[in-house]
Amino acid sequence: MKTYLDCIPCFFKQALESARIAGAGEKKQREVLNELAGSLPEFSLTSSPPEMGRVVYGLVKRITGEDDPYREIKEKSNRLALNIYDSLKKRVNSSRDRLLMAVELAIAGNIIDYGVKRSLDVGAELAKILAEENKAIKEEKKAIFDYAGFKSVLKKAKTILYLGDNAGEVVFDRVLIEEIRRIDGDKEIVYAVRDKPVINDVLIEDACVCGIDRSAKVISSGSDAPGTVLSLCSKEFLRMYKRADMVISKGQGNFETLSGAKRQIFFLLMAKCPVIAKDIGCNVGDVILLRHREL
Amino acid sequence: MKTYLDCIPCFFKQALESARIAGAGEKKQREVLNELAGSLPEFSLTSSPPEMGRVVYGLVKRITGEDDPYREIKEKSNRLALNIYDSLKKRVNSSRDRLLMAVELAIAGNIIDYGVKRSLDVGAELAKILAEENKAIKEEKKAIFDYAGFKSVLKKAKTILYLGDNAGEVVFDRVLIEEIRRIDGDKEIVYAVRDKPVINDVLIEDACVCGIDRSAKVISSGSDAPGTVLSLCSKEFLRMYKRADMVISKGQGNFETLSGAKRQIFFLLMAKCPVIAKDIGCNVGDVILLRHREL
Repeated sequence: MKTYLDCIPCFFKQALESARIAGAGEKKQREVLNELAGSLPEFSLTSSPPEMGRVVYGLVKRITGEDDPYREIKEKSNRLALNIYDSLKKRVNSSRDRLLMAVELAIAGNIIDYGVKRSLDVGAELAKILAEENKAIKEEKKAIFDYAGFKSVLKKAKTILYLGDNAGEVVFDRVLIEEIRRIDGDKEIVYAVRDKPVINDVLIEDACVCGIDRSAKVISSGSDAPGTVLSLCSKEFLRMYKRADMVISKGQGNFETLSGAKRQIFFLLMAKCPVIAKDIGCNVGDVILLRHREL
Repeated sequence: MKTYLDCIPCFFKQALESARIAGAGEKKQREVLNELAGSLPEFSLTSSPPEMGRVVYGLVKRITGEDDPYREIKEKSNRLALNIYDSLKKRVNSSRDRLLMAVELAIAGNIIDYGVKRSLDVGAELAKILAEENKAIKEEKKAIFDYAGFKSVLKKAKTILYLGDNAGEVVFDRVLIEEIRRIDGDKEIVYAVRDKPVINDVLIEDACVCGIDRSAKVISSGSDAPGTVLSLCSKEFLRMYKRADMVISKGQGNFETLSGAKRQIFFLLMAKCPVIAKDIGCNVGDVILLRHREL
C-alpha cells in the first residue's frame, strides 16, 4: 500500500507520542517533530507507511537516546496476554470449529497495536475479547473473511511462514500455531519477527517469552521496519518467504508493506485506521482475513 | 493560550483538509504539506495556534490560488442557520429565562466550526440543537458557566464588543444580541469579524447576510488570523477593544488568542479539541461561559 497524504499528520502524531513514551522532555519532543518535518519533503509517497514509520522511530531513538522506548509496554502486553493463554486455549478446546476460533482470536489479538491506538488499555481490550461468549469476533465485523480459502490452502501447506506483528499479540499467534500443529504435526512453521525494536512490534525475545518457540522456529525478518519491507529483509528471511507454501501475515504493518506482493499471502488484521479501511474497502474496526492472489 | 506540541499534527491535518476544500490535486496538497513542514521549525510555541493557523491558510491560498476556499461552505452555513432563525427566536420567546436561552443557543451555535470538525454536517448539527426541548445545552455539559457574572456585567455595560467566530454561527450571535438589545435598547453593540477569508470564519459579508448589522455595528478586526491576535488588529478595532465595558468572545480561536488578555473578557465556546479542553480543565464537548479576569 502506498502512503496516503492522510498518513502525514499521523506520522507527526506517532513521532510525538513515541518521543513521549521514550521519556523525552518538551525540547526533545519538538526536535523530533522538527527533524521529521525536515525529512518529509524527500519521502516518496510510493513507499509504504511503515517505511516512513522506520524513519520516525529511528529519529526518536537517535534524539532521545532510548533504544527501545516501548520495552515496558511490550513486557506488560506479553504478561497480560500470557495471563489469558489458558482461557484462550479453553475457548479453542470448547469450540465446534477449533481452527476458526483460533483464527478469530489471532485477529482479535491484533488490537494490541501501539502504532495506531496510542493510549491503549491492553488489559481492558483482552477482557473484552474474553467476554465474547461463543465467537471472538462478531459476524458483522467480518468485512472480508475467506476462512474457506484459508483452510483449504492450510491443509495442503507443508511449510508455513507466519509474520508476527506485535508483542502480546504473539500469545494469540501461538494459540493459532498450536492449533495448526495439532491438526498436522508434520508442518514446518516459521514465525518471523522484527530485527530491532520499533514501536511495540514483536522481537525474538517477545516470541520466546510468549512461548511460541515451542511450536515454531522463530526467525528475524532482518529489518527494523514496522512491517515487512522485502528490500530490507535478510537473505534467510527471503529464502523462507519464497520457499513457504503459505504465508500468514498479521496486522496492518505487514499488510501495508506486502499488499502489492507477487505471491499468495493470507492477511489477518483488524482495520484500525481510516486510511487502511478505505484502501481495503471496509470500515474502521472491521476484521479481515484476506487472501491476496490465488497463487 | 500557547501552542502545544499536540497542535502540530493537527496543523498538518488542517492544511491537508483545506487544500482539498480549495480543490487542490494531490500534487498541490503535497506541496502545501511540504511548505508547512518547512516553516514548522521557525514557529514559536509561545505563539497561539491561530497564529500558525494564519500561516497554514495563507499558504493554502497561495499554493492553490484559491482566495476563499470555504466560501460555499460559509454560504451554506449562513443559509441553514438563517432557516432556523425563527425557531431560535421562538425558543427564546417561550423561555422563562430568555437571556439564558439566548446565551446557550449562542454557544451551541459554536459547533459550526470547520477548523476543528472537518467533516461537519451543519444541517444535522442545527437539527440537534433544535431537538433539545427546554434547554439548548444539557446541564452536565456546562463545565464552566458563569451566567450570573455574565448577567451582572452585561447589566452595567454601555458598550459591548462582541467577537464573532464562524459563518452560520453569526445567526446565533444575532439572536443573543437582539435579546441584549431588547433588554436595553441604549447599549452600543459592536460585532467584530475577520478582515480576510480564513477557514469558515465570519467576514463582514456573512455578518450582513445573517442580518446582524440591523442590531449591531459590524467592524473588521483588521486581521486575517482565525482568532484575535491583538498585534495584528487595526487601530479602530483596538480602540473599541479598550473602550468597551464588556467583551463577549465567541469560539476557540478567539479564546486561544485572548486567554492571556489583560482585560475582562467573557469567553463563550464549545471545547471541541482535546488540547483546549485540557488547557481549560474540562472535557471535549463541554460548553464554556468563562469570565476571564474580574476587571
